[in-house]
Amino acid sequence: MSIDRRKLRWNGWGWVDAPDMLGDKADAVWAWVARTVGVDPLPSTPAKPLAKIALPTSRLESGAVSRLRDLLAADRVMTDDYERAFHARGKSYHDLLHVRAGRIETAPDAVLYPTSSDEVLAIIQLAARENIAVIPFGGGSSVVGGVTPLTGGGCKAVITVDMTLMDQIIDIDETSLVANVQAGIYGPQLEDALQARGFTLGHYPQSFEFSTLGGWIAPRSAGHQSNKYGKAEHWFVSARVATPRGLWRTEGFPGSAAGPQLRDIVAGSEGVLGIITDAVVKIHRAPEVKDYRGYVFSSFEAGIDATREMMQSGVATAMIRLSDLSETFFYNALDTGGAGADAPAVFCVMLVGLEGDKPEVGHALERSREIIKKYGGLHMGETLGKSWYEKRFLTPYLRDPMMDRGLGVDTLETATRWSNIVHLHATVAKTIEDALAANASAPGARGIVMAHVSHCYRDGASLYFTFAFPRALDREVEQWLAVKKAASDAIVANGGTISHHHGIGTDHLPWMAEEKGAIAMDILKSIKLQLDPTNIMNPGKLL
Amino acid sequence: MSIDRRKLRWNGWGWVDAPDMLGDKADAVWAWVARTVGVDPLPSTPAKPLAKIALPTSRLESGAVSRLRDLLAADRVMTDDYERAFHARGKSYHDLLHVRAGRIETAPDAVLYPTSSDEVLAIIQLAARENIAVIPFGGGSSVVGGVTPLTGGGCKAVITVDMTLMDQIIDIDETSLVANVQAGIYGPQLEDALQARGFTLGHYPQSFEFSTLGGWIAPRSAGHQSNKYGKAEHWFVSARVATPRGLWRTEGFPGSAAGPQLRDIVAGSEGVLGIITDAVVKIHRAPEVKDYRGYVFSSFEAGIDATREMMQSGVATAMIRLSDLSETFFYNALDTGGAGADAPAVFCVMLVGLEGDKPEVGHALERSREIIKKYGGLHMGETLGKSWYEKRFLTPYLRDPMMDRGLGVDTLETATRWSNIVHLHATVAKTIEDALAANASAPGARGIVMAHVSHCYRDGASLYFTFAFPRALDREVEQWLAVKKAASDAIVANGGTISHHHGIGTDHLPWMAEEKGAIAMDILKSIKLQLDPTNIMNPGKLL
Repeated sequence: MSIDRRKLRWNGWGWVDAPDMLGDKADAVWAWVARTVGVDPLPSTPAKPLAKIALPTSRLESGAVSRLRDLLAADRVMTDDYERAFHARGKSYHDLLHVRAGRIETAPDAVLYPTSSDEVLAIIQLAARENIAVIPFGGGSSVVGGVTPLTGGGCKAVITVDMTLMDQIIDIDETSLVANVQAGIYGPQLEDALQARGFTLGHYPQSFEFSTLGGWIAPRSAGHQSNKYGKAEHWFVSARVATPRGLWRTEGFPGSAAGPQLRDIVAGSEGVLGIITDAVVKIHRAPEVKDYRGYVFSSFEAGIDATREMMQSGVATAMIRLSDLSETFFYNALDTGGAGADAPAVFCVMLVGLEGDKPEVGHALERSREIIKKYGGLHMGETLGKSWYEKRFLTPYLRDPMMDRGLGVDTLETATRWSNIVHLHATVAKTIEDALAANASAPGARGIVMAHVSHCYRDGASLYFTFAFPRALDREVEQWLAVKKAASDAIVANGGTISHHHGIGTDHLPWMAEEKGAIAMDILKSIKLQLDPTNIMNPGKLL
Repeated sequence: MSIDRRKLRWNGWGWVDAPDMLGDKADAVWAWVARTVGVDPLPSTPAKPLAKIALPTSRLESGAVSRLRDLLAADRVMTDDYERAFHARGKSYHDLLHVRAGRIETAPDAVLYPTSSDEVLAIIQLAARENIAVIPFGGGSSVVGGVTPLTGGGCKAVITVDMTLMDQIIDIDETSLVANVQAGIYGPQLEDALQARGFTLGHYPQSFEFSTLGGWIAPRSAGHQSNKYGKAEHWFVSARVATPRGLWRTEGFPGSAAGPQLRDIVAGSEGVLGIITDAVVKIHRAPEVKDYRGYVFSSFEAGIDATREMMQSGVATAMIRLSDLSETFFYNALDTGGAGADAPAVFCVMLVGLEGDKPEVGHALERSREIIKKYGGLHMGETLGKSWYEKRFLTPYLRDPMMDRGLGVDTLETATRWSNIVHLHATVAKTIEDALAANASAPGARGIVMAHVSHCYRDGASLYFTFAFPRALDREVEQWLAVKKAASDAIVANGGTISHHHGIGTDHLPWMAEEKGAIAMDILKSIKLQLDPTNIMNPGKLL
């Protein structure tokens, strides 16, 4: 494992000793935030320290712990409070509400660290015999409840299988540009190893530093540069999956007409069929050039039109990230410490990232600038792009200090066709605003809602919403549930998918059947029954 | 239906009145072929006319026919000999051996022409009640036994559902570049309708003129220009599928993390789960420019290296088609009527097709020429490319006159990684040569084996083999089976998929489980059981 877990915030984001990303603008920013959300001063709402939290008693009888220790080395079967608390929840706002308040009803009864596919299989087979639920865990950065240790009602205990000791590159086929890699490798370790040999996977989700290869595939994750490198289901070639039925190696041909390709059901299976132990993935030669630039548009619609035309004309971008008026305004205020932020929001920033060989990037730069200009976009040079690129993994660090000040912040995302994207954007944003108002913590308290387009296709794109608001401290979970439900209902009713890249987990379960339909749900259940007849694999998720 | 079936060869390829593609070079070509295969003169082996063939008695009792006629108009439930013979087999060499000899053991008991999804569903539900097998049929161009009307052992009769009256474009979303189209539309009608509005699907399989949209999706078909437009599973967004369980509309988002996307199991399902009644597909604006050129390489390996580098550098080709020495030699001999064909095969032709906006094509042309030059490829200008483009749908017409002259000709295809492609090419070609020799019709009779790469990916490419040989007229099916088995065994043992774009049908069934593994086969069977519990949908195929 390339990360010392004790140096991570068990109940928040990232490194314990990360510097305050707001730096010397912190006071100005918090003052602006307080004015903007209508709660001034912001309250102090620190998280409960682990030492003061009583974890639930382990349900694993000592015999079962011994049998697990017979499978692995004793020091790879952990039952101490830190391990159980660290693995009790993912990293969603909903998760943080629970763990910060010290409500850890769902700690795993033990945490196991296998080092091989055979060990993973042995754990699963023992769990199947003893009716113990098995939760796959990579970096634990799920924001949909994907790693919450549930019994599913039927299991008598829960063990979490932490995959991060399985972090080796097994081999690289440099001719075919595919690599076989163990699933527990963290993002930075994977990219360091690949880049040392001149390659890249190019998958940089927001969670990149604290998430793993298997954790990217299981919920169909998307990296910032998905326009070039693809979503997980696009760069994922094949996997070995440990299931209660045994080890399963999926197909891995460049193309095949030998029936449905079942690798496609591994991407999105979220651990309910088994645990991905290693995966073959498509890699690229590390790009010669990275070019990130900013443009501004006078409206979201104009930016959408330019984005669509770039995608449909085959301009080879790595990333197009178009913020709406509100998000552009918010990030500008963060950057200036709130200076000038009382003026109305009047423009939208688009960041365009190009990566590749010099001739490809040069050509794409020329073509993208032509199209952007055609839709009235103004070139702002490389400063904005470079600044975003440098700070791109820092934004999640804002959440903990917000949580400490009585604020809530959540994100949700969807995707739809181009013909529906402006409508869906407006409808979901309005729905979240209305729901925040209807569930306000106090008279005068206001939420902030913003969005961006960030993963683009020929037929449509994703929409990513962020909303921040004063927490109703006496009913914070209910407040969140009400807003989440309103937004999710609006997404599904208006032609969006309930998730473009976060997954289903527990939080999106209520909308899954509506999106898929009864026949699809029955197909998924029959696959589950085939591989995991007693429902020990990540029960309570996805289905 | 845009094609009058009575004008098609029921027991061969294409139009009855198609001109001889060899033109005035025919005599010279046949003389060269006779010398080359070591059988001179070639025998005369005409097909048995339909009038002299006794079809098996229909197993459908008159009550069942009446009930089917109650569902559809009477004239859309056909039981005459031409309809039954036309739908008795697909278009593989193996099929032709049977139908040309008058062995039509597998004619459907009735042929139905539905005009709506509801009618398709009603047919399937009646068939399920009465235990009748249902065979989906588009153009009937399957070359793997995909449309053979089998009972699967359990059904008491077989009906073929011919989809070609369902040939309408339902709608086009011009903003999102997706079209919803009924599945029974033939290629030319679809492209004419799309191109009249400025769009194209860009899917031109070898069977384009005589195959349908649904028939492209069901076995994961690939068009000549798949590098740009994608294989069926890439341009296929969603489908409505009529199953014994009811109508099922699959997901259709540009991207989604709402669990496994089950549309992915429709592509490749070959009718065993249900019948695709309409599909949403990604379309493109019709390309401004099409640029097809020829290059020659001194070796297959050098051509492979250039192909791989174009794919891995992101050069936007529509098609790269690299013939091996033998194929280049053969097509050259066809073209010259055999003149100069006694010289050894010394070079490989590569055709590169570029399609798109002027700036994209211009850039790709420059980049492709640079890379080809780097590997020693010589630019031959546009003549070769244009000539291939104009004649690209004529090659299948060669088969019938070969069959008439005691010759056999079959094709098979696979895909593998770049690191394995030279090895697989050599091994399979050698295996086919050896198997042809071991199963020669007579001492001195020789086969011709050739191959090309035609569908390319970042991680690998397809290999397409063609082999022609003097038929062993007294054991022609056994001869074919022996060669097919040897080639298929070699493909699977050497890291290739049993099919890249033809599908499984009946002919590749023996290799399916070896390729997929027991767990995958059980998953597929559990899906089948969920949707078609009594196995009436295209029984005996795929699983």
